[in-house]
Amino acid sequence: MDTMMGSASQNLKPELHFWFDFASTYSYLSAMRIETVARDRSVNVVWHPFLLGPIFRKQGLETSPFNIIPAKGRYMWRDMERQCEVLGLPLVQPDPFPQNSLFAARLAHVGRHEPWIGAFVRAVFYAEFGGGLDISDPALLAGMLMEAGADAKATLAKAESMDIKIGLRAAVSEAETQGIFGAPSFVTSSGELFWGHDRMEEALNCALLLTD
Amino acid sequence: MDTMMGSASQNLKPELHFWFDFASTYSYLSAMRIETVARDRSVNVVWHPFLLGPIFRKQGLETSPFNIIPAKGRYMWRDMERQCEVLGLPLVQPDPFPQNSLFAARLAHVGRHEPWIGAFVRAVFYAEFGGGLDISDPALLAGMLMEAGADAKATLAKAESMDIKIGLRAAVSEAETQGIFGAPSFVTSSGELFWGHDRMEEALNCALLLTD
Repeated sequence: MDTMMGSASQNLKPELHFWFDFASTYSYLSAMRIETVARDRSVNVVWHPFLLGPIFRKQGLETSPFNIIPAKGRYMWRDMERQCEVLGLPLVQPDPFPQNSLFAARLAHVGRHEPWIGAFVRAVFYAEFGGGLDISDPALLAGMLMEAGADAKATLAKAESMDIKIGLRAAVSEAETQGIFGAPSFVTSSGELFWGHDRMEEALNCALLLTD
Repeated sequence: MDTMMGSASQNLKPELHFWFDFASTYSYLSAMRIETVARDRSVNVVWHPFLLGPIFRKQGLETSPFNIIPAKGRYMWRDMERQCEVLGLPLVQPDPFPQNSLFAARLAHVGRHEPWIGAFVRAVFYAEFGGGLDISDPALLAGMLMEAGADAKATLAKAESMDIKIGLRAAVSEAETQGIFGAPSFVTSSGELFWGHDRMEEALNCALLLTD
């Protein structure tokens, strides 16, 4: 009964779709904060792990724009330092940057509607940008799944399945259809798109206004 | 006496260097607000008109990134609509975009230390993004110079001089030396760089803290 009521009231809550790539620096800032900030506004977060790589390649970019334009990359790391200091988050530059985020994204795609998704996403980002760890390491990811409360073995196995590989590829196509070209991005149920951590709160407020 | 005291107390004020290109959409937002917001914090604005074109060309871009990546361009105009609505600013997409900002930049370079610079910069941005006018039109610019309190005839003549042409080119080089790769950008006297209208207030606060 409790569960049913909880679920019914949850369905009335406005939703905000959060699109992130584990390799993206500014996605780290949003991922660590979005669930708390959304809860304050009674907005539900819908998690959308995806990959920027295929989108960048269509734009003719072989790697992160932060690597292609050195001045932009130097600036981004300095800006990240400042933003992390304000938010009280640690910052370590992972090597290599960007990290290979494919397997972590497949795992998150498996669990995107599971109760453990938020804790798992935060654990991956924190290990990568707070600790400089290699997020393509299956052993590291397995530990994070367990910590988050997932069935690690089953989730790791599912992440290798054709369904999930195709599903993640479809998520990338869906991102493009929604006009997404970078991460983090936020989309309201009315299709309003916001790009960048700097727009997270504006996006949450917009999602909230839709139900007023 | 008044002037001397004014000038002496002005020299004690912290400074923030504001780098802008008249063709840049987000520079419009900063240009319309920076003098008011800086005055509230007793920070002096140092105006740096420059050109993004030569910097983009070195990055291999032939036009604005907003034109090269259509999804990014569509997003930018929607985001500008939302930001302008919040700030109470009108928004019209100039045609062509980006506008040719060379002559306006030369005029602003002539007047960059003059008392009329703020009013002139705002008039150009407002005509371009608030009214959709062609900011390469010398007659339009002459009217704006007069309105701002400049000697229009002398300023227009100076803008065609070799000194000013070379001076503006040197400003572009200086921007690159300071690590600038986009506009608007803000640089404190300690060399701290901030990029984008979203960082304007953080940059002003940083400039202020340096003198505490």
